[in-house]
Amino acid sequence: MELVEKALAGNRRALSRLITLVEAGDAQSRQALAAIYPHTGRAHIVGVTGAPGTGKSTLVNQLALHWRAAGRRVAVLAVDPTSPFSGGAILGDRIRMQALGGDPGCYIRSMASRGSLGGLSRATGDAVKVLDAAGFEIIIVETVGAGQAEVEITREAHTVVVVEIPGMGDDIQAIKAGILEIADVFVVNKSDREGAERTLRQLQMMLHLASGEPRDGWDPPIVQTVASAGKNIADAAAAVERHLEHLKANQLLRRRDRERLGREWNTILREALLQELFARVPAAERENLLNQMLERQIDPYAAAYRLVQRGFGPS
Amino acid sequence: MELVEKALAGNRRALSRLITLVEAGDAQSRQALAAIYPHTGRAHIVGVTGAPGTGKSTLVNQLALHWRAAGRRVAVLAVDPTSPFSGGAILGDRIRMQALGGDPGCYIRSMASRGSLGGLSRATGDAVKVLDAAGFEIIIVETVGAGQAEVEITREAHTVVVVEIPGMGDDIQAIKAGILEIADVFVVNKSDREGAERTLRQLQMMLHLASGEPRDGWDPPIVQTVASAGKNIADAAAAVERHLEHLKANQLLRRRDRERLGREWNTILREALLQELFARVPAAERENLLNQMLERQIDPYAAAYRLVQRGFGPS
Repeated sequence: MELVEKALAGNRRALSRLITLVEAGDAQSRQALAAIYPHTGRAHIVGVTGAPGTGKSTLVNQLALHWRAAGRRVAVLAVDPTSPFSGGAILGDRIRMQALGGDPGCYIRSMASRGSLGGLSRATGDAVKVLDAAGFEIIIVETVGAGQAEVEITREAHTVVVVEIPGMGDDIQAIKAGILEIADVFVVNKSDREGAERTLRQLQMMLHLASGEPRDGWDPPIVQTVASAGKNIADAAAAVERHLEHLKANQLLRRRDRERLGREWNTILREALLQELFARVPAAERENLLNQMLERQIDPYAAAYRLVQRGFGPS
Repeated sequence: MELVEKALAGNRRALSRLITLVEAGDAQSRQALAAIYPHTGRAHIVGVTGAPGTGKSTLVNQLALHWRAAGRRVAVLAVDPTSPFSGGAILGDRIRMQALGGDPGCYIRSMASRGSLGGLSRATGDAVKVLDAAGFEIIIVETVGAGQAEVEITREAHTVVVVEIPGMGDDIQAIKAGILEIADVFVVNKSDREGAERTLRQLQMMLHLASGEPRDGWDPPIVQTVASAGKNIADAAAAVERHLEHLKANQLLRRRDRERLGREWNTILREALLQELFARVPAAERENLLNQMLERQIDPYAAAYRLVQRGFGPS
């Protein structure tokens, strides 16, 4: 595909068009992904999540600038699962562009949920593959909010950064268990605010309460930053890099990639199986079962079992 | 199943245990759902969504009390997709219990996301079936927040109520397109606050901008309430009831049920197909393909296609 060739050769317009293409998730996008797939698997994927107001975007910008200054090629995907629209995200992009725009070693893109969360998760994963193949060494996937949707998207990263701010630790709801479990690096941003030390201690306490043994032999570090002033950005970046080194040194990187790929593949398989079933079983049969369900003559699970057996044939 | 019989006979402890059982989504829960399914399809399912701080829970409590006073049996499912934990929701339940607890015609339960959003959506749908079969005439599914996850859960209702408050209309992000599209009834709560009239006008304007023709011949009414003072609750309840009458009078209820069931069935089919594939194709074959993917010799979509063909056999 010409578009793929151009994108991999560094043409930014082609890159943007290629991401738009894979976002669609259709036959053409699968063809493009097949073409780029051999070139993937080199990037360090960094997930950044945290509640609104924690200064996450500023931190991500600063990290990107830091890594750019160190000569690394950086891409940022800003994912908003809470919004069916990308208005805010697009505005964010424009502001970011002022600092990072025009730099060919940096690419920023926002992704909003069009349709479904499952679709957004898949589209994000496929956009990461494109950026990976295009040679970006660090890909930051930044999500808005810290709910279950964000957890699901963020966990697909090699390194997960969770951003907190002083005062949030007071709220028992602020640091949620799902977030604690996925965090590889904690950043307490806006740490020039009152209560920063207390938040730090609370985080340390929660970490020790939550885990007897550190997961995979990695004790998540807590870094205090003031992203808006560029303070301690190097420390945060170093913590992220150390985590990747830890994964590599302990043969964990391949295991994480394998788990990630397994989950992704299951999602792809589910959809491919459904499409194949639809192609093999006449629509009238499905309609008939749906009508029986509506009449409460058969329940959806039993009807599914029947159709699945019919589709696969005798085992 | 004894548990099903007891729950359908009105035993509350059995009802709670049955919902816990179907939440699990395992073989036993499918068996229970098969047993209750013939008794479903009678309830009016009402989805209530809106941003945090709109007084949604208070409104839902008041609606429940209103319908109880009218002799209707009411159940409330409070769903929190943003939290992997149910701490807040449980607290909410306790407060609610003071007003509604002890009344056998009213059942309140909170559901938090354990694991995945898809799982929560399925568990909510199955809990609704249990409550429907147990004879609750109105089932209110209340979601926290107004993001994509909420839209996905709320759209499974017959009637969707979107709650706004004065002042939110000022924010272009506040009323999102996804929300506008799914709303059957708008409630402007806390309408004793300044700016209530303006919010009302803005909503009216957005509704007229968004839709040329009203969807399904239904023009979503806007009701102004002060839920904390019990003001205009009867109007809000009447608007919800009128919407159901509209669906019934125009043969739309069955169409909505059919669409809903179709979506639900697709989700069940995807999972059932994956399990059947796993049962039919040796694990070693899957492992082998996964390894080839990790080595970038085959992409996940092509690998999925291969495995699907292998599982189904020649067509």
